[in-house]
Amino acid sequence: MADKERVGFIGLGRMGTGMAGSLLRAGHEVTVYNRTPGKAQELVDRGAHKARQVADACRGDVVITMLADDAAVEGVVFGDGGVLQSLGKAKTHVSMSTISVALSERLAAAHAQAGQRFVAAPVFGRPDAAAAGKLFIIAAGAPDVVALCMPLFEAMGQKTIPIGDAPQAANLIKLSGNFLIASVIEALAEAMALVGKAGIDRRQYLDLLTATLFTAPVYKTYGGLIAGGKFEPAGFAVPLGHKDIRLTLAAAESLRVPMPLASLLHDRFLTLIARGGEELDWSAIGRLAANDAGLEDLLR
Amino acid sequence: MADKERVGFIGLGRMGTGMAGSLLRAGHEVTVYNRTPGKAQELVDRGAHKARQVADACRGDVVITMLADDAAVEGVVFGDGGVLQSLGKAKTHVSMSTISVALSERLAAAHAQAGQRFVAAPVFGRPDAAAAGKLFIIAAGAPDVVALCMPLFEAMGQKTIPIGDAPQAANLIKLSGNFLIASVIEALAEAMALVGKAGIDRRQYLDLLTATLFTAPVYKTYGGLIAGGKFEPAGFAVPLGHKDIRLTLAAAESLRVPMPLASLLHDRFLTLIARGGEELDWSAIGRLAANDAGLEDLLR
Amino acid sequence: MADKERVGFIGLGRMGTGMAGSLLRAGHEVTVYNRTPGKAQELVDRGAHKARQVADACRGDVVITMLADDAAVEGVVFGDGGVLQSLGKAKTHVSMSTISVALSERLAAAHAQAGQRFVAAPVFGRPDAAAAGKLFIIAAGAPDVVALCMPLFEAMGQKTIPIGDAPQAANLIKLSGNFLIASVIEALAEAMALVGKAGIDRRQYLDLLTATLFTAPVYKTYGGLIAGGKFEPAGFAVPLGHKDIRLTLAAAESLRVPMPLASLLHDRFLTLIARGGEELDWSAIGRLAANDAGLEDLLR
Amino acid sequence: MADKERVGFIGLGRMGTGMAGSLLRAGHEVTVYNRTPGKAQELVDRGAHKARQVADACRGDVVITMLADDAAVEGVVFGDGGVLQSLGKAKTHVSMSTISVALSERLAAAHAQAGQRFVAAPVFGRPDAAAAGKLFIIAAGAPDVVALCMPLFEAMGQKTIPIGDAPQAANLIKLSGNFLIASVIEALAEAMALVGKAGIDRRQYLDLLTATLFTAPVYKTYGGLIAGGKFEPAGFAVPLGHKDIRLTLAAAESLRVPMPLASLLHDRFLTLIARGGEELDWSAIGRLAANDAGLEDLLR
Repeated sequence: MADKERVGFIGLGRMGTGMAGSLLRAGHEVTVYNRTPGKAQELVDRGAHKARQVADACRGDVVITMLADDAAVEGVVFGDGGVLQSLGKAKTHVSMSTISVALSERLAAAHAQAGQRFVAAPVFGRPDAAAAGKLFIIAAGAPDVVALCMPLFEAMGQKTIPIGDAPQAANLIKLSGNFLIASVIEALAEAMALVGKAGIDRRQYLDLLTATLFTAPVYKTYGGLIAGGKFEPAGFAVPLGHKDIRLTLAAAESLRVPMPLASLLHDRFLTLIARGGEELDWSAIGRLAANDAGLEDLLR
Repeated sequence: MADKERVGFIGLGRMGTGMAGSLLRAGHEVTVYNRTPGKAQELVDRGAHKARQVADACRGDVVITMLADDAAVEGVVFGDGGVLQSLGKAKTHVSMSTISVALSERLAAAHAQAGQRFVAAPVFGRPDAAAAGKLFIIAAGAPDVVALCMPLFEAMGQKTIPIGDAPQAANLIKLSGNFLIASVIEALAEAMALVGKAGIDRRQYLDLLTATLFTAPVYKTYGGLIAGGKFEPAGFAVPLGHKDIRLTLAAAESLRVPMPLASLLHDRFLTLIARGGEELDWSAIGRLAANDAGLEDLLR
Repeated sequence: MADKERVGFIGLGRMGTGMAGSLLRAGHEVTVYNRTPGKAQELVDRGAHKARQVADACRGDVVITMLADDAAVEGVVFGDGGVLQSLGKAKTHVSMSTISVALSERLAAAHAQAGQRFVAAPVFGRPDAAAAGKLFIIAAGAPDVVALCMPLFEAMGQKTIPIGDAPQAANLIKLSGNFLIASVIEALAEAMALVGKAGIDRRQYLDLLTATLFTAPVYKTYGGLIAGGKFEPAGFAVPLGHKDIRLTLAAAESLRVPMPLASLLHDRFLTLIARGGEELDWSAIGRLAANDAGLEDLLR
Repeated sequence: MADKERVGFIGLGRMGTGMAGSLLRAGHEVTVYNRTPGKAQELVDRGAHKARQVADACRGDVVITMLADDAAVEGVVFGDGGVLQSLGKAKTHVSMSTISVALSERLAAAHAQAGQRFVAAPVFGRPDAAAAGKLFIIAAGAPDVVALCMPLFEAMGQKTIPIGDAPQAANLIKLSGNFLIASVIEALAEAMALVGKAGIDRRQYLDLLTATLFTAPVYKTYGGLIAGGKFEPAGFAVPLGHKDIRLTLAAAESLRVPMPLASLLHDRFLTLIARGGEELDWSAIGRLAANDAGLEDLLR
């Protein structure tokens, strides 16, 4: 494989569009596919080839999938004319979506049986980081295959961390990472409801936190959204947060690991969805906490 | 008040000893008092005066208290021969202990009535930061009084953040900060039980987290303790964590702010105490989470 | 002491009025006192003497207190001219209020020191049961003193259960009983939100439950309120439920017993209060659960 | 259909054996099937026919399934030679197992498409009630089909409650009922840990509860197990309780109904399983609560 690769890219949501753009910027030859075709145009204008069907994106050495959930990945991979049928022997499917541990195991087995190779490489970062090539990428799979994919990862991410042979380990780590972020959101939501109701300025409070103990960007990002009470447009919407906590709990169920804080987060997201908050950013837990404290009307 | 002050320091626990030492290092004239007298010797060797009773520590412009809990502060301040009786008119009591919002309000009122001045200046940082003069200090009180205390704060802390006129606001922020740290501990405890039971190396996992999204030192510190399963000796013991969450919930109760994550943390600390974990570091929530996942025996 | 006693009764809320009325109906000579004097008139019309001050209600062999909370009992007992100062040697104070374990211990000690006798006899039952003399009474104290009070208890209750020498045990049992009832409310609230959102008729569902496994009246009473969505007027208002769970958690804290379900209930009541539901019956947890499921607007 | 029916019975666990025995006692002609054949002998001795395969149990007007979980029902119904293939046109499958709402919907659709009839009739009651014909049966399906099944239900239950046309409603109600029972277990577990640690006799406490407000048998049954600390042999084992709460939460997830108490129960059962308690009765939550209070060693 040369430095510049022929790569297919399936899934042009807000994350996928940025990631495919980063591949183009790095000089790779990219064939893009999206179920809703309009989304490809911007990338075609920047030099991408446009696939008419999934199979057209599977003709290179590597095909990357970046889709919304398990069902979308299952459809694209296992369906008629899907990745599994279309990808050549010894070619590689890189799954970068946030999917369940169980599906990752199933993908690994199916590709192995088909003589194909499989890498799980989920990412941390919001759409702006995807567009800027600044994602963090957790990659798991056979070391030689991961090594071959490194030029692609380097185009999309600021750092790639190999985490061993078992693809599902990368997916579990990704899910656990989103659980950790959601935990930060919950903690900030409760703390801001508390100090806010005491009359302390919430932005000044956040400045204090991030200048001292909580210097990680995740505190600035979500603390700012909660302090400002601004949850639209969503960078990462409530149903996606809900999905990731659900998948975390599903993995925990299989492994027999009780996670009471994950259970709490699950109920928070379910409440947001039930009460009409599907369009909001997942940091809207901050609005729920404020609402439960009598501080503001939640929704509608 | 000159740059170098005559200051009393009451409370020579692990935090207080480090803080008083920082004051000495900066050249202040410090009179130290501790209920258990032996603890003062090290500081006396470094140039401190030794107070035989509380009143002896109240003869300068400022007296600082750094004690374990509300009861200790009440005893030292309101008791016979206590700070309230001993401190001169227009002199300042700086309360740096982590105490309840309610007690802070009571101290402010009592000192005002006695013609004395009061500043609440709780700190963030563990004993090593106290010894190195690297604490974060949240100061609230009349601005001119806070300004007068700044040389002292600069000796003890790497950064001092004034947060307004109302002393109790500083205490609420301090409590909320410890709640945020305990939330990080809980989240890491659950995540480590999950990935650990899946066979992923917990230290490698932590390195990955802290190299990407969770760069704040609090993740390194507590993640390291949990990954290593090493909770003794305690930097900050379980009963202190329990106390701070209890005071957070007490403030939340007064303000009518439900905090379900704080409730969960409270039950965690109570379980640790009930099961014999009083001597452990508060990050021993990590052992509870592992124990509930069947990974290891908790205690004894 | 004769069968018909001279008894003082302090506290004429909805419960106390019914209980004092039951004593009158049984032929006892009752002197009633209430801070707000108007409330006594109905009982005076039925033959009660009216006390102008607390001391007037303390001239018989027994004085009963039935007040809203710890603060009210402390005021009436420990205040100037209060029960402690007014009650004769070897006379008995029967505390029937739902108060904290800590206050019950303090009352027992204070009365013992004053040469008086003390019985804790909290009750189960709503105002209609109080008026009908159908309460359940949990009595704890010296057996001979409890025996002397039995004619009074028999007038007010359908059943009196002695539970030993330690008065505070009765208070703890009372609190735990209200915790059990609140748990039933929470469970029914969640179950009704679930089946209701599935389109099952909630009253039919309740009939099914109470005809099979859940025959206890508490399921009929609270299930009916939740199924009907009718939470006003309150038989037992949210702040009282909140207080009892708070006191349960305070006792659990002292004893080092984590109670996660009690923590959940505490947060439910706090949310109801914060969102304007102070006037509602404590079964309004049913409205919260429905609201969180997107079924109805909660309040306002 | 005559009063005495030819009926197949699939699933001879502790519940199924008792139920099939009740059918025999009432004079019905019963053909029994169990995957592990030995279990049928006792019933054959009492007059049952023994089916060698599933199809043999599907030759009458009605076949009843009473199996452990969704997977077992799916295997027996949808497998080769299963109920769906074997049952005649217009004949009836009565599913009495506790299964998911989703599977019940799938069964209803499959049987309708095959020209067969389907009734969901889950039960409340433990093995002794099954053996005595004292179950409560919740039946849902076409009213005429339910009516035809009534003689069978009357043989097995003390009361049958029709709940409408939609079979899955019966399953949801059954799940919610087990959620309500588990809630009673949790509440009693916490209350007994509390009063027990205070030194109150737990059996005397239970007698008091069941003589006053909590007269439903479920309080006697589970309160007795918890007070006695005796969780083996299991009447209803931890994994079954875990399954039912999991299915309740799955239905709640589909319907968008947050159930925080169900989440708490789920974590309790998961903890019991992770810590080696799979063989215990589901009331062993009482041991967890006691263990968390430092009262006793949980397991091993």
